[in-house]
Amino acid sequence: MSAAVINYDRGMGRWQPGARGRLTRAALELYAERGYERTTVAEIAERAGLTERTYFRHFADKREVLFAGSTELGDAMVRAVAAAPESATPVEAVAAGLEAAGAIFRDDREGPRRRQAIIDTTAELRERELIKMASLSAALADALRDRGVPDLTARLTAEAGIAVFKVAFGRWVNGTGPDDLTEAMRESLMELRTVAAG
Amino acid sequence: MSAAVINYDRGMGRWQPGARGRLTRAALELYAERGYERTTVAEIAERAGLTERTYFRHFADKREVLFAGSTELGDAMVRAVAAAPESATPVEAVAAGLEAAGAIFRDDREGPRRRQAIIDTTAELRERELIKMASLSAALADALRDRGVPDLTARLTAEAGIAVFKVAFGRWVNGTGPDDLTEAMRESLMELRTVAAG
Repeated sequence: MSAAVINYDRGMGRWQPGARGRLTRAALELYAERGYERTTVAEIAERAGLTERTYFRHFADKREVLFAGSTELGDAMVRAVAAAPESATPVEAVAAGLEAAGAIFRDDREGPRRRQAIIDTTAELRERELIKMASLSAALADALRDRGVPDLTARLTAEAGIAVFKVAFGRWVNGTGPDDLTEAMRESLMELRTVAAG
Repeated sequence: MSAAVINYDRGMGRWQPGARGRLTRAALELYAERGYERTTVAEIAERAGLTERTYFRHFADKREVLFAGSTELGDAMVRAVAAAPESATPVEAVAAGLEAAGAIFRDDREGPRRRQAIIDTTAELRERELIKMASLSAALADALRDRGVPDLTARLTAEAGIAVFKVAFGRWVNGTGPDDLTEAMRESLMELRTVAAG
């Protein structure tokens, strides 16, 4: 299997075996070829050699195939925040979450790039992405509150973490930042801290 | 006219005279009474004693009546960022934008509270709100770049400003923060700066 095909099979950055991976690959192909709006779930299933019914066992709708990885991403970030040393400040705990996110995308920029190109050209998908980011911010704030961080601090630190994630991910995926996402996250977090001190 | 009626007439916080104000008031009333989904533009126009055609001269769709004030809000914030002294740091320029936002909502929490209650219960409206916030962040970043702020710094400062706005507005509107929005903004900005230094 060529590297390009392997990349195609990745959702938010991890190898997805079996039906799920085939459906994700088929969806990315068709969305890129025909556009998101002009592609149906039936066509995605057909391209993957599976049934519509199988599609809906894996994904709630036509959009969700592009966002399935965001649950995994959120879980990894929340776990890292929770696992940060007790002595870690709120921003240090969120930094651990950003490192975990960077690790998920470590080996693959081409998959996320294809996915982002589709999202960027479809208002409905950009909305869904914003919703996912807002949910992620809420989950990070919860994780911080669980560490005993007061509500206002937890919310602001979580929002700041998402700001860093968004900016760093954008620069990484469009090639204007470092080639390594973790590096891009560190750079953006450092910049945010410098800005806030200014 | 009673204070309650005057409050009803406000969109994002400013008095809206004439047809626009009547349509906004009618929409807020109907969305609260029947729910957003079960209300039609025809019903809003009828309640306001106007035609559907008039509605669509003022608002692009059923959602937009709730977000018309966000253009004014964005413009005020962008103007304040642009007008900040040349010596102001990026975060100080964004702080000036937050002050301008606080001033817009100065005298009315009831109108925004009714509006927020409707938005919070409707996924479609929460999505639209996130889109508006993302556009506002992009506009603030542009305003900072126009001041000569480098791209990465501009994006992060703008995102941090929106984070402060969101958290402060949420606390103000649901009564868990200061009664004055400007005060809530200052408190959240200070907290973000403390967090970032941690």
